[in-house]
Amino acid sequence: MRTIRLDVAYDGTEFHGWQAQPGLRTVQGVLEETLAEVLGEPVSVAGAGRTDAGTHARGQVASFTTDAPLPTSALVPVLKQRLPADVIVREAAEREADFHARHSAVARRYAYRLLDQPDVLWQRTAWWPRRQVQPEALARAVAPLEGTHDCAAFQASGCSASRSECVVHRAAWRRWEGGWLLDIVADHFLYHMVRNIVGTALDAARTADPEAAMRDVLDSRARARAGATVPPRGLCLERVYYAAEGA
Amino acid sequence: MRTIRLDVAYDGTEFHGWQAQPGLRTVQGVLEETLAEVLGEPVSVAGAGRTDAGTHARGQVASFTTDAPLPTSALVPVLKQRLPADVIVREAAEREADFHARHSAVARRYAYRLLDQPDVLWQRTAWWPRRQVQPEALARAVAPLEGTHDCAAFQASGCSASRSECVVHRAAWRRWEGGWLLDIVADHFLYHMVRNIVGTALDAARTADPEAAMRDVLDSRARARAGATVPPRGLCLERVYYAAEGA
Repeated sequence: MRTIRLDVAYDGTEFHGWQAQPGLRTVQGVLEETLAEVLGEPVSVAGAGRTDAGTHARGQVASFTTDAPLPTSALVPVLKQRLPADVIVREAAEREADFHARHSAVARRYAYRLLDQPDVLWQRTAWWPRRQVQPEALARAVAPLEGTHDCAAFQASGCSASRSECVVHRAAWRRWEGGWLLDIVADHFLYHMVRNIVGTALDAARTADPEAAMRDVLDSRARARAGATVPPRGLCLERVYYAAEGA
Repeated sequence: MRTIRLDVAYDGTEFHGWQAQPGLRTVQGVLEETLAEVLGEPVSVAGAGRTDAGTHARGQVASFTTDAPLPTSALVPVLKQRLPADVIVREAAEREADFHARHSAVARRYAYRLLDQPDVLWQRTAWWPRRQVQPEALARAVAPLEGTHDCAAFQASGCSASRSECVVHRAAWRRWEGGWLLDIVADHFLYHMVRNIVGTALDAARTADPEAAMRDVLDSRARARAGATVPPRGLCLERVYYAAEGA
């Protein structure tokens, strides 16, 4: 039995998210179907991050175990021929038997891309907030996030994770081609957490004291105090970190 | 009679280029049809750059004249409601009667985006050359382009422009989200010129002396000496410059 790690990228626009759901086109579903054809046996794939419908990934990691005779080195070219154009397996490599894409991950990095103005070129991968973005104010708004916090305020209502304390290693804005992006790294993320942080940061940036406004929301632990959930299309899972590689 | 300037952006993936052609979906065709509906009279639109099929624009400029009573300030919101999702009119403003999007333009800026690796997130707007890109070698390859040159070597065969001498104000590579992009500004461009320059630069970058290789092609004025025409999807018309604004 071999344990295999796949590095996966996808344009999430036409997927109902990562997680397999009966009758819906999902990334996990497409991968499992295609792997089952290729390997000639049913395959169960675990993903490091369960991205929402419409959310993208450049650095998703998946793992599965198999007894199939197909050499691991043949997986990338064979999958390239069979997968649809909006999902690609960049690398496939054998790992120790105890490797699990989700459980072994020590941190995840997401990007949320904002646009400076409506821009059709990036409309699948970024979002225009319909107002002028103030980069200095946005930077101050996310400064309180770095560190260890109970992030319950940013958790989608209706979802109760067992552990809402998150270690945020980095939360910073930087320029990208179309505007500003939030670059955020944490040990784990709660459901809708990045999208709720961006909505809250946009609101906080319009106040006289963006840091205090963000801190108030964070300390409240109340979803009702946080900003709107911004649309999924601006969100991308950029990278997953494992202990052996360092974060 | 008013002369109106439109600032237009589009995702060129689903268009057969800018220029109106019977029976084909083109940006000019869609704009002219939509403007005719909105203004209640036939409209003839001139574009600053006639982009190819599959090529994008973030800063295309178009102009037309009209006698219609609709206020110019209403054009952006009305067009937003009626245009398809892959084309957007960002601004509409009145100009002097002698303004013409193409004839008045003094320079154009294009970007050609290369990918570091296959990346589905940017597959509509960038191209992966299937080999490792060497940024230092690419930089040396495009250095000879700046200045005034006969660029006939980069002109698509079968096309004979009346004036193949171009003033290249800038030709430089810089990082973007997915890899390296060629940022090129010139007074005018020949048919397929940017795509042929990129193909030639990729070849030149693999030689011992990329500058000499590029200079040889340029001096030859022979299309047969230049590299392959790279795919249209990496190309984007970023901006058009007019005298009053400076270049």
